[in-house]
Parts: sequence; structure tokens; C-alpha cells
Amino acid sequence: MGNKMWGGRFADGPDAIMEAINVSIDFDQRLAMQDLAGSRAHAQMLSDCGIISSADVAEILKGLDQVEQEIVNGTFPFRRDLEDIHMNIEARLTEIVGPAAGRLHTARSRNDQVATDFKLHVRERLVAFDEGLKQLQIALVNQADANADTVMPGFTHLQTAQPVTFGHHCLAYVEMLARDRSRFMDAHARAGQSPLGSAALAGTSFPINREQTAKALGFDDPTRNSLDAVADRDFVLETLSAASICSIHLSRLAEEIVIWTSAQFNFVRLPDKFSTGSSIMPQKRNPDAAELVRAKPGRIIGALTSLLVMLKGLPMTYSKDMQEDKEPAFDGMDALDLAIAAMTGMMADLTVNKPAMRDSAGKGFSTATDLADWLVRALDMPFRDAHHVTGRLVAAAEAKGCDLDGLTLDEMREAEPKITSEVFDVLGLDNSVKSRTSFGGTSPDNVRAQVAFWREQLS
Amino acid sequence: MGNKMWGGRFADGPDAIMEAINVSIDFDQRLAMQDLAGSRAHAQMLSDCGIISSADVAEILKGLDQVEQEIVNGTFPFRRDLEDIHMNIEARLTEIVGPAAGRLHTARSRNDQVATDFKLHVRERLVAFDEGLKQLQIALVNQADANADTVMPGFTHLQTAQPVTFGHHCLAYVEMLARDRSRFMDAHARAGQSPLGSAALAGTSFPINREQTAKALGFDDPTRNSLDAVADRDFVLETLSAASICSIHLSRLAEEIVIWTSAQFNFVRLPDKFSTGSSIMPQKRNPDAAELVRAKPGRIIGALTSLLVMLKGLPMTYSKDMQEDKEPAFDGMDALDLAIAAMTGMMADLTVNKPAMRDSAGKGFSTATDLADWLVRALDMPFRDAHHVTGRLVAAAEAKGCDLDGLTLDEMREAEPKITSEVFDVLGLDNSVKSRTSFGGTSPDNVRAQVAFWREQLS
Amino acid sequence: MGNKMWGGRFADGPDAIMEAINVSIDFDQRLAMQDLAGSRAHAQMLSDCGIISSADVAEILKGLDQVEQEIVNGTFPFRRDLEDIHMNIEARLTEIVGPAAGRLHTARSRNDQVATDFKLHVRERLVAFDEGLKQLQIALVNQADANADTVMPGFTHLQTAQPVTFGHHCLAYVEMLARDRSRFMDAHARAGQSPLGSAALAGTSFPINREQTAKALGFDDPTRNSLDAVADRDFVLETLSAASICSIHLSRLAEEIVIWTSAQFNFVRLPDKFSTGSSIMPQKRNPDAAELVRAKPGRIIGALTSLLVMLKGLPMTYSKDMQEDKEPAFDGMDALDLAIAAMTGMMADLTVNKPAMRDSAGKGFSTATDLADWLVRALDMPFRDAHHVTGRLVAAAEAKGCDLDGLTLDEMREAEPKITSEVFDVLGLDNSVKSRTSFGGTSPDNVRAQVAFWREQLS
Amino acid sequence: MGNKMWGGRFADGPDAIMEAINVSIDFDQRLAMQDLAGSRAHAQMLSDCGIISSADVAEILKGLDQVEQEIVNGTFPFRRDLEDIHMNIEARLTEIVGPAAGRLHTARSRNDQVATDFKLHVRERLVAFDEGLKQLQIALVNQADANADTVMPGFTHLQTAQPVTFGHHCLAYVEMLARDRSRFMDAHARAGQSPLGSAALAGTSFPINREQTAKALGFDDPTRNSLDAVADRDFVLETLSAASICSIHLSRLAEEIVIWTSAQFNFVRLPDKFSTGSSIMPQKRNPDAAELVRAKPGRIIGALTSLLVMLKGLPMTYSKDMQEDKEPAFDGMDALDLAIAAMTGMMADLTVNKPAMRDSAGKGFSTATDLADWLVRALDMPFRDAHHVTGRLVAAAEAKGCDLDGLTLDEMREAEPKITSEVFDVLGLDNSVKSRTSFGGTSPDNVRAQVAFWREQLS
Repeated sequence: MGNKMWGGRFADGPDAIMEAINVSIDFDQRLAMQDLAGSRAHAQMLSDCGIISSADVAEILKGLDQVEQEIVNGTFPFRRDLEDIHMNIEARLTEIVGPAAGRLHTARSRNDQVATDFKLHVRERLVAFDEGLKQLQIALVNQADANADTVMPGFTHLQTAQPVTFGHHCLAYVEMLARDRSRFMDAHARAGQSPLGSAALAGTSFPINREQTAKALGFDDPTRNSLDAVADRDFVLETLSAASICSIHLSRLAEEIVIWTSAQFNFVRLPDKFSTGSSIMPQKRNPDAAELVRAKPGRIIGALTSLLVMLKGLPMTYSKDMQEDKEPAFDGMDALDLAIAAMTGMMADLTVNKPAMRDSAGKGFSTATDLADWLVRALDMPFRDAHHVTGRLVAAAEAKGCDLDGLTLDEMREAEPKITSEVFDVLGLDNSVKSRTSFGGTSPDNVRAQVAFWREQLS
Repeated sequence: MGNKMWGGRFADGPDAIMEAINVSIDFDQRLAMQDLAGSRAHAQMLSDCGIISSADVAEILKGLDQVEQEIVNGTFPFRRDLEDIHMNIEARLTEIVGPAAGRLHTARSRNDQVATDFKLHVRERLVAFDEGLKQLQIALVNQADANADTVMPGFTHLQTAQPVTFGHHCLAYVEMLARDRSRFMDAHARAGQSPLGSAALAGTSFPINREQTAKALGFDDPTRNSLDAVADRDFVLETLSAASICSIHLSRLAEEIVIWTSAQFNFVRLPDKFSTGSSIMPQKRNPDAAELVRAKPGRIIGALTSLLVMLKGLPMTYSKDMQEDKEPAFDGMDALDLAIAAMTGMMADLTVNKPAMRDSAGKGFSTATDLADWLVRALDMPFRDAHHVTGRLVAAAEAKGCDLDGLTLDEMREAEPKITSEVFDVLGLDNSVKSRTSFGGTSPDNVRAQVAFWREQLS
Repeated sequence: MGNKMWGGRFADGPDAIMEAINVSIDFDQRLAMQDLAGSRAHAQMLSDCGIISSADVAEILKGLDQVEQEIVNGTFPFRRDLEDIHMNIEARLTEIVGPAAGRLHTARSRNDQVATDFKLHVRERLVAFDEGLKQLQIALVNQADANADTVMPGFTHLQTAQPVTFGHHCLAYVEMLARDRSRFMDAHARAGQSPLGSAALAGTSFPINREQTAKALGFDDPTRNSLDAVADRDFVLETLSAASICSIHLSRLAEEIVIWTSAQFNFVRLPDKFSTGSSIMPQKRNPDAAELVRAKPGRIIGALTSLLVMLKGLPMTYSKDMQEDKEPAFDGMDALDLAIAAMTGMMADLTVNKPAMRDSAGKGFSTATDLADWLVRALDMPFRDAHHVTGRLVAAAEAKGCDLDGLTLDEMREAEPKITSEVFDVLGLDNSVKSRTSFGGTSPDNVRAQVAFWREQLS
Repeated sequence: MGNKMWGGRFADGPDAIMEAINVSIDFDQRLAMQDLAGSRAHAQMLSDCGIISSADVAEILKGLDQVEQEIVNGTFPFRRDLEDIHMNIEARLTEIVGPAAGRLHTARSRNDQVATDFKLHVRERLVAFDEGLKQLQIALVNQADANADTVMPGFTHLQTAQPVTFGHHCLAYVEMLARDRSRFMDAHARAGQSPLGSAALAGTSFPINREQTAKALGFDDPTRNSLDAVADRDFVLETLSAASICSIHLSRLAEEIVIWTSAQFNFVRLPDKFSTGSSIMPQKRNPDAAELVRAKPGRIIGALTSLLVMLKGLPMTYSKDMQEDKEPAFDGMDALDLAIAAMTGMMADLTVNKPAMRDSAGKGFSTATDLADWLVRALDMPFRDAHHVTGRLVAAAEAKGCDLDGLTLDEMREAEPKITSEVFDVLGLDNSVKSRTSFGGTSPDNVRAQVAFWREQLS
């Protein structure tokens, strides 16, 4: 066929197209170590079950060691004509150990092999996410500890609503990440069945021991249904779902960092390592790392969408469509990996501008609700009336050009004669945050108790 | 402002626009029962903690009963000017019980109230999904039981690969649904903390007992951080993620049903209730229910995407953006609900065309891999050689116009003299499926054992 | 079947499920006017082609008028048992005019009818989006006009980079919206073929005139292929794609408004109509309308995703899956509608805090690049050297505690002796923005020229 | 920092993280040719405007030629420490031509440079999509020509509804692709403005000629607003939107091919080049290429989602988030590229199994609607009555075990005495398709006319 028809990347016609469809070695070489582990476990089991000889398994294991060495050393001869990592390793093993290599393929097929390798990979990533998030939690708990009574504005609608502490704010993210970790660990547990030995799709007539290979690979047990085993990609979908949710949490904190590092807010300063400057504008410090973390949900949600769309309406069992599962998954998982690391670096060394936070928190009569609550609590005033009185006091303070605690008791009593001097205990930023002692509230004592709780959890 | 500027739905200008932004009663009235439950728990707790009087709480509880009655009866006067379900109930309560109603709002705000109501709703849906999927599993197990040895083609690429049993195929979906149920239950457990009492965002200075309200509402315990409590929508995201994955499973089975009910496959017949016919084309039976189930991932993934996009980069704590959480969530959850029910109905009464399945399974030399495996196993032939011999035997059968078990032993021995008559034990559809006895394999005995296992699990 | 199996919404079993699958009248009644228009055009054409009598068509048209009247008056008896809007109108027409109604269905089917109705609806929405965006452009151009020389910080990374004018900033959005309008109009043109007369899927043997109905309904011409005509939903996909992109633009401006209305930025004040306040915190003004606009991409992208997922891998021609096209599309289009109206309202009456903008723009040596450019231009200094000199001057200004134009000529000459007093022409905010005279640059003269250009375009 | 904190990919701590954030050369080297083109145009313009000397521009152009040569030869020293393609080329140019290279950066910045390069790249891809789709249209038109009267079942719900021709079916896709091409060309036109010369974000004070660079690069004219120019990524969003829709079309055809190549349908045979076989199962031919095309919407919709999520709520102008635009875009565009090429290859050499198609079309009384239409048309029978009579005739044929045209006239007259022998003109598959002569209908003459129309369009 002529150039005109194909053009571009595929000027060579059908061969170039089918190569682009079939060759996966460019990306699935990331599964090399999992493939080797699977082959070792399978070979040992075949021998233990008397399906292949112990001499054969010894040869195979020696050969696999050499393959691993070559991959680690960068000397392994990856070949595109062998399409994928499984065939590359198999072919190289045959070169090294000869016919024994052929026996390794007994009672397995590429369908259960690829499912096993990919599941092993994803399980490792899940553990790494959990560990990475733990480090981020530690960084946040450290900030919370150091800022248990650092007052900042508590925002709704990016408008100051009530004063809170920065420590409390940091701990909100510790909670989100705890849920994320728990989701990753649940996904790990749910991916606990080994597909190995399901063969092409129907199981096998060889007397294999799937329990043995499952345990050897760190799985809990083998899958119960061979059709499901080769058609299932839930473990990726669930991982990307949990990763999407986690990335949303990180993006919310990242957005706050971008806003907080603006000249107008000036609440925090990023460590130099995580921002870039301008050679001629010394005050311009771009929060690159935070922006990147904010952007990452795009990649991860995109990857999740990719796999959901691909699997939608796909009949049993394996279809070629499913080869499209790895690249988006790798991309999405790498994105989360980087986002966690970048956020950990930022939060570990973030410098807090306490005066700026406090100054912002004090504006806008942010303790007005404290006053209203006091009126309800101390004077047994109904809510509606308490709000009315508070409104009058705010107006008085505004007229006087001060905050609520700048009014004298007499001035207060003009609005409501029953007010006593105890009201001043709840006005003022520190008093306000101290008073929020309900479980989960922002009072510094609560924050410190939660820091202790989390230190225990994270140790 | 003139008509030209606004036009259409918003010809009335800003008021119509802000109404469209603020009014949520049209959809959040679905949270009425949860709102009432939350108010009852809160009122009782306020009284038990001495924050309001027992007389007040008695009034409030009586009033809430009346409100519930009115809603159930359809006589409740929903008002759009009161914007949402919370204000509608509060206002009606005030009409009924007077000033005591005002005390109900002590130590809570709309922020923790809406989070609590929505979380309660989602938790109920999760339980319902679990129960619905259990019914579907039962229907599938029944089919598996009845078809433990019904031979059908095992497909890869929609091409016959090896014979399997329809029972085994049904059980593959039982496995998927088991993971789905487990995901829903994990989500339920992770949504086990009550936001109630987190107030606007900072907690409260009233001496409330959040443990009490949490337990009263069926939660495990209260949330540990007030900022997280009002900003968190993980419970919806996780539910929609799990729902998306579940809908993918259902869509795969639905696609199979659509294909199987085509005249060309003719593997199954849907119950009349779940297909629509043509008055003049008696053999045309549109698998409407299956098509709908196949389509539903669109709605559910769309809902998940909606919420992820909305929450991306949203700073703490509550922002108006978050009001956009409910409609997509309701839509996505309703879609799954319907998909589960429709699939259960179809699978419960599906009629299997065993002869058509068997006939299809027998074509295309589908037992060729059995023959190759037998050569490896019985004659200790290396894989590559076994495949070569098998290829020659298939060619011989093709030439003779029969399937593999139609060759005589002599004809077989022309390809490989060592073949014995035992080879016939693995040829033929029934022998093939019987031979797949590895754990998870398709042999009828395995299928029956799995049916027993699942009957136990589902009882 | 028992309650247990079905539960919840579907306790009534298969009938309730199939009703949920089949009934679309709850949402497709929004297509009533389009359905009437289609029927009128079809009836007239059938008569003109001699397929039905002119007496029949007169009856039909009279009946359709009455149906329209009933719908407008709210007296039309919508019936769920008639499933959809098409059957509802057909049945009512039969009640009104008797047997003649039956003739209306000649040479058309529900497949081409629903495609026609929906396409007509989408085309109307496209025109409305175009008009709505035009109003928003006018509001932005008005702001640009009033703020052609209002200096504000030009941001990258939310850090001040160079001063720009608020007018220039507004016009950036006018450009984006111009592309959006052009996309909507392209979509309108591409949806210019009428499916009516494609019948079920194969065309018809009646001698119909599809040109006539196409023109009567405002289409350019009829579709060229009947299979495509009933299977095509491109017009919705393209509309939702363009709507998604448009909503991204609006969300960017909305995010800016949320940030700008924070106490820390305080750049603009929203009109009262588009923000909500707090009864006791007078300075708290929640930018609800902006937050909602920021959230809307979720709904619209979600709708687009829904339809793409649903249509993926769907074989020709009509499948029941396609009934899932309308609800997400309505939801997505309504969302954009509201977002445009809300943004128009906000931008029309936004109050700009010029001093705060200017004050922010002046900080951080934002004219440092102007200085460097001057050194290159006036002294023919290579870029690298110019940057070096600028760095030294910024350091000097920082040490002196002033901005760059606060240095004396002598002080400047310490860093670079060749500097002349002309340098002061480019320092200072106003000089900086004035100097950006390249086409598309921020100079006030450019802004005014662009305002004139757009006034012409929009008139 | 210790290993524990960072672990995995980022064991080296912040430096490794920031490298992962900042380095884009691994993927943006695909923009090398566009970057060179932009630099050439810019250098020439600077010289023509008297901003740099003609000696300098000569040096620069010579240097750029050498850079291009090195890239083409594979000898260009790509360096990760120089981060991106722009800095790599700039640094290498400096090595080659010395200080003159520094002058190239006058009056531009990386912000407008990257926008220009990427836009140029996308514009080239759009043209390639258009050309690729044209080739696919040609392949489809050829099939349509050869199969203008090849009868096949026309499906709704994957159930035979009415007979159509395979040629008509092919032309349905020609229509879809025509809309796709038109969308790509509209996107190309809308991306017709050059960002070059917008500088960092505010324009420049150098007297540049942006018209000149725009024309030199094949743009229509320069962008009108510098802020928009550097912040805009509409051209990618629109391209990926159109690519998503196009991929949906291709996935529908791909799904049909997968179904049609199943043993049960057996309608078509894929060319050997586009399917893979089994060494031991000669009849198993996996439609790999079709499956891949069916899967590709996942990648493309995923890429679109990525970019929409990333841009949502991003304030003006450039933010680091935007660096995330290229990898998904490349991935999505490559995916469509491959899908188009694979589909073209399949359709060009698809073999049609006419007897199997015809056989399928004839089953299920697929001409029943023809009969009903004839009764309406010839006997002026109302629709409802016509359907009733048809139902009785189908029942009669079913009882007799024949198709409708197997009934004798007498047998027909038992159901309806007015039936004449002319009825046989519409029964039978060929008569049925021949009768669908309405514009856009499936009659072979229509198909041939459309083939002629498209040959004209595509020549």
C-alpha cells in the first residue's frame, strides 16, 4: 500500500500498525520483577507437584537469576519483535537454559500470567502509597504540634467565618489521608487472590497446587473462578479510584498553599526546594510543587476514566482491549506517587507566618458567633434574639472602629443590659478557639490531644 | 434589567438566577427522613446534657413526629422560598411547636447538619446495594447449579477458545459481585463517623455529647476533626467509585446477554417481562433491560466525574460548590439501583438454550489445547512439540471433516505413534470440561463445589 | 416474586423495573414543542405529497393546536403508561381527532421522530448559548471600557509577574467566549440535517419529501443516510463538549472572583444580588454565584462523560442504551445556562476596588522586566547582562526600602553608568502598562482599541 | 532527609522531586521542529523590524539549521538539566553561535513560546486526522460500491429489524467521519491565531511585527489578547473533544467487526494482517485490531478528562499546572492516529460473507413492516389495521414454516381479501431494500448515488 493511504507513523502499512497494536514491551517491562517472581513460584510448584523434574526447576531458577541480573545491570536484550515482557523473558530463558525453559509454560498461559504480574505490581504500589501517606501524615502532625495554638481564619467560601488554629487545619488533612490509607489497604486485601494457574480461561488438567504459588507470591489464596481470574481488572480500577480521591485531598491542600503563598495572603512560605524564583524579582516565588499537586487529579481521574471506558460492556473473558490497561494505570499511579512526595516535602518544611494568619483571623468580627452563643448559653436567650443583639453590637463596634472585644461593658449593655463582664471570656481570638472544646473542635487542648492520638497511631 | 440580557429561564433577572443557585428543596427533600432522625437525636442529646429543657425536647419530638406524618401523607407544605429541606422542616416545626423549635438549632449549623443527613442517606444506600447484589448472586448461583455441566464456548476475543460450563460462567459474576459487596461494606464502615456537632466548622462551646448522637444515628463514633467533618464528601466519592466498578461488571454481563439473545447466537431467552417484542415480528425480542444495564455505567461514571471535578482544588471548608454534590449522587445511585434490579430479574428467569450452546462449543476444534496438554502430560512431550503434533491432528480432522474426537487412533498415530487410546478421555466437550479440575477450573465438580460454597455464604 | 428479592423502589417486581426502564415522559416532556413542530411539518408534507388527504391534515393540525394549548395551559393529561412524549401526544391527538391521527404515523417511526425532536431542542439551546454569551461579552467589554487603564497585578502562579490593566484582563475572557460562541455556532451548522423521514432505520417506500420537512423545521437539508440518522447523537456530544470548554472558561473567572472577593485580596465587590451575607458578620459576603459557576464544569463534564461512555462500542443502529441520552444532556445544558446567566449578572455590576488593585500591582518590583527590557533596547545590552544589572538595582531598591522608581539616577548609575534619565519612562506602573504596545499587549490604548473592535462585533 | 521519608523513586529527596516536576524534555522533545520553526520566524522578524541585526539573524538561522540537523541525525545532546526542549535548543544554539543566540529571546518568553509550539503541533495533527479519515472514507466507499446490493440484516437492539444493504451500512460511517473531519477542520480554523509575541503575559515594548511571524508559521493572524494567548489551551481541548467523538464512531464499527467475525455471525473476515490466529486452532482468528480500536476511546476520553480537570478553576494566566497538558494530549492524539490507521487497514481489505449476511437477513419475518406499509399504501388501510393483518399473516407463515413470501395469495386473502398479487413486489429481501427509495433510504440505487456523491467529494 502506498504512502498516501497510511502516511505518518504508519507509512509502512499494516505491519507498522499491528506492531503498534501488539508490542507492549516499551511499557510492560516495568513488570519484569513481578514476572520473574511469578515464574520462580510456578517452577518450584510444578516440581513439588511432580509435573516437572527437580533438575529442570534448578535449571530454570538459575536461568531466571541470570535474567534478573541482566535486567538490573541494564544488559538484558529487550526485543520489540518478542512483543511483551513475558515473551522476552521466556525467550531469553530458553537461550540460557535450553529446553527446560519450555517446561515452565506448563499449566499456565499468558492470560493468567499477565493478570498475576500486574496484580503483584499494583499490590506493591498500594503498600508504597500507604507508606508515603504515612510520612505525609507525620509531617502534618508535626506542623499541628508546632501550631496547636496558632490562630488563623477558618474559612467558608474563602471568607473568614470563625477563628481556628493552623494545627487543627493540618489535622483535618491527617483525617483525610487516614481514610485514603485505609482505602488503599482495603484494596490491597481485596486483591489478595492469585490468578496464577487459571491458565487461558478454564483452568488446567495438570495437578497443580495453586495455594502454594499464591502463598509464595504473598497472596492470601488463589482465585476461585478461572474465568473471573483472567477477565478481572478490579484491582486496578479500585486502586485508581482510591488514588483519585486521595489526589482530590492533596489538590485541596495544594490550592490552599497556592493561595496562602500569594503576596496578598502571605500566610506561609514554601521551602526553597519546592518553589522557583525569578532572578530579577526577589519576592516572586512560584509555588511550582503545589501547582503540580493541584494539577495531578487530572492525570489520575483521566487514567481511571480510561480504564472504566475500556472495560465497559466487554464480554468475557480476555479481549485485546484489555492490553490498554497498563499505560494509563502506570501514569495515574506515578502521578499520585509524585504528588504525595511533593506534598510531603512542602509540608515538612513549610514556614508559617503566624502574625499574618492572626491578623487575618481578627478581621471581620470573626468572633460574632461566639458572642451569640454566649448570649444563648449564659443568658438563656433564644437563638433569634441572640443574633439580633449580636448584630447591634457588631454595628456598635464597626461605628467605634474596633473589634468586638474593643467595646466596653457599658457599651455592650446598651444593646442588652443583662450582659456581664464574663462575655469577654469568649471574645478575642484566643478565647474563641479555646472555647471550642466539643469533641473534634478547634481548641488547642483538643488539637494537642489529637496530635498525641496520631503520634500513637503513626508510631 | 431587560429581557434581552437575561432571556430564557432567567428573564426575571438576578432573583431568578439566585433562586436557581440557592434552592435545593426540589432534590434534597429526599433527605427528609435523615434530617428528622438527626434532629431527634440532637434534641434528645441537648436535653440529656442539660443544654435545653426536657419540656422543650418533648415539644420538639412531638413536632418532628407531626412533620414526618405530613411528609409521609404528602401534606407537608414544601416551600421553595425556604430553599432546602433543613429550613423547610425547621420552619414547619416552628409553626407547630413555637419557640422551642428555635432551641433545636443550638450547637449545630447547617454545615454539619447537611453532612450528617447526606452521610446517613448514603449509608442506607450502601446497605441496599449490598442486599440487592446478594439477591443477584442468589439468582446467578441458582443458574450455576442448574447448569453445572451445561457446556458452552469459553470465549476470548469473542472467539471460541476452550469449552467451559455455563455454571462456571455464572459463578465468575458471583465473584465480581462479591468484590462489589465487599467494597460497599468497606465504604459503609469508612463512613462510620458522625459529623453532627461539628457545627459551622470549628466545633462548639456547648457541652454536647457527640458520642450519643453518633450512636443514636447508627454511626460508630463521631468525627475527630470539625473542619474535615464539614468539608468531607469522601463517602459519596467512594460510593460512586464502587458503584462505577459494579456497573462495569453488570455492563459486561448485559453485553453478553445482548449478544446471546441475538438470532445468530441464540444462547439464551430473556423472560418476557424483561424484553419487548414487536407486534408484527414475533421473533424480534428486544433485550431492553439488558441494554439499559449496559448503558448505566454512563450515568454512574458521569456522576463520579461530576463530583471529582467539583471538589478538585476546593479550599477548606464548606464552599457553595459543594451544593452540587447531591443531584449527581442521587442520579448515579438510582442508576445502579435499577441496574441491579433489572439484572436480577433477567438472571432469575433466564432460559438457557443448551443445544445451541453445546453446538457452538463444539466447533473450531475447541479441545485442541486439551490434546496438546495430554501429549505433554501423558507422553512427557515438550510443549513446542506437543503443539506441533496437535496442529497436524487438527489438519487431519479438518481434512476428514470431523472434530478431533472423530479421528481414529490409527489416524492419530500417523501424526504421533506414541498416542494411546487414553487420549479420547480428554477429547470431546464433556471430557474437556471434566478434566479442568485445578482449583478454580471449570470442571462440573468444581462448579458444584463452588455452588455449595456460595449457598453457604449467601444463606 | 417476594419483597425480599426486589425491595426498595422495585418491591413490585418486574413491572416496576420495566416501567423505570421504559418510561421517559418525566423528562422527555421537555421535547413537547419540538414534537409538535415535527408532527406539523410531517403532516403537511404527507398531504402535499398526496400520501394523506388534505382533510386529514387539517384535522391533524387542528388537533395539534389543541394539544399545544393544553400543554401550555398545564391541562395536558400526561400519562406514564404511555411512556414517552411521542406516544402521549399521539394518543391525545387520537382522542381529539379520531382515526386521522393514525395517518400521521405514516412514513415515520419513533426512531427518526425522537432523533428529530432532540436535535431541534439542542439546536435551540445552541442559539440560546450564543446569545447568552454575547450578553456576557457585552458586560465584560463594558468593564474593560471603564477599566482600560485600571492597573492590577498580572499573575502567573498567582504571583505578581507584571502590571496589566483590569480592562485587558476582562478582554481576555471576551476572547475565550468568542471561541465558545464560534464553537456553538459550528455545532449548530453541523446539526443542520433533519433525520425526519429516515423511518425506523432503512428509509421508507412512501414517496415523501424530506427536503420540505427539513426546511419547515429550520434545518438546512435532510440527512443523507437513514442508518446514521437514527443512530447519530453527535449533535449532543459536540454541544456538551463545547459546553464543557465554555464552563472551564467561566470556572477560571469564577475562581478569580472568589479569590478577589476574599478579605485578603479585596479587589472587587460582587453586587448584593449575587452574594449572600451573614446577619451578624457584616463583612462576610459569600460569593455564592461565583462558587456555583466554578462548580458547574462538574455537571457538564459529567454529562459529556455519561454520553460518551454510553455510546462507546454501541453497534448500529438504535439500541435502548440511547434512551439514556436525554437526562444528562438536559442537566448539562441547564448547568451551562445558569452559569452564563450568573456570570453575566456578576460581571455587569461588579465593583472594582482600584486602589487595592494598584497597591497590589506595585509590590514585588513588578516592573523589573521593564527595566531589563529598557537596558536591552536603549543600551543594546545583551539579555543576560541586562538581567544582571536589573538584579543589582532591585537589591539596591530593596535595601533602600523603595520600589525601582524610588532610586535616583545616581544610585542607578552605580550599577550601570550608561543608564540615562529616560529609564524613568518605563518604571512606575502606568509607564509599564503604557509601554506594552505590541499587538495584543496590555497598553491602555490597545485596550481601548479592542473595546472598540468588540463593540463593533457585538452590535 | 532519610530514605524512609522519601523512599522509592524519590529516595534522593527534594531534588529528585523537583526534577520530576520540572523536567519535561522527555516528552516535549516532540515539539522540537515546531520550536525551530518558531525561532526562525521570530529571528527573521526581529531583524526585519530592526530589533536585532541582520548579521545576528544570519548566525541564528545557521545555528538553528545545525540544531535541526543534529536532531534529525539523532546526535543532538538532549540534557535533562536543561529541563525542556526550549532551553535545550537555546543552550545548544548558544554553544554553536555564541552571544547572538541570546538576542533570539528578545521580545518573547517561554510562555508564548510554548503556547506557539504546542499550537503548531496540534494544528499539524488536525490536518493529519483529516487526511487519515479521508483514506478511511475512501475504503468505506469502496466497500459500499462493491456491496450496494449486498443484503444484510438492519439491526436495532442487535435484533434484525429490516433488511438493509451492507453498502448502506458502510455509508453510514462515511457520514459520521465526514462530521469528524469537519470538526477537525473547524478546530484548525479556530486555532488560527499565533500567540508568538505575547511575551510573558502582557505583551512587549519592543516594536515587533506579530503579523509577520503569524503568517510565517502558517497562522491566519496573531492573537488579540496577550493574557488569553498564554493561558489558552482551547485548541487542545477542542481537538481532544473531536477526537473523542471520532473514536466513539470507530468503536461502534469496531464492535460490529468483533461481533461479525464471531463464528456465530460469520458476516465478515478480517485481512490476515489485522487478526492473529492460534497455531493449533485454525478457525480462531482474534480480531485484535478491531478490539484495539474499540478500546481506544478510553485513552482519548481519559486524555480529555485530564485536561478539563487540570484547567478547571485555574486563575489567569500561566500556572505550573498547565505543564500537565502535553503528555495526555500526545497520548490521546496518538491513540486516535492508530485507531484510524487500523480501521482503514481493516475496512480496505475486509471480506464480506454475502451468503451469511443474506441468510441472517431473511430470518425473523424481517419484511413484515414492508407488508404493513403496502397495506397502508395500496389498500389505504389505517396503520393500526394494517398491523393487525400483518400479525395474522406472520402467524400463518410461522405455522406453515415459511417466510412471508412463501404464503400463497389465497392464504394471504384469508387474512385480508383485498390483498392483490402486487404484494409480492414488496416481500422478499431484494424487493424490500429496493423499495426504500426515500432520500437517505437503503435502496441500492440510493446507495450507488451516494457512492457517486462521495467519490466526487473525496477526489
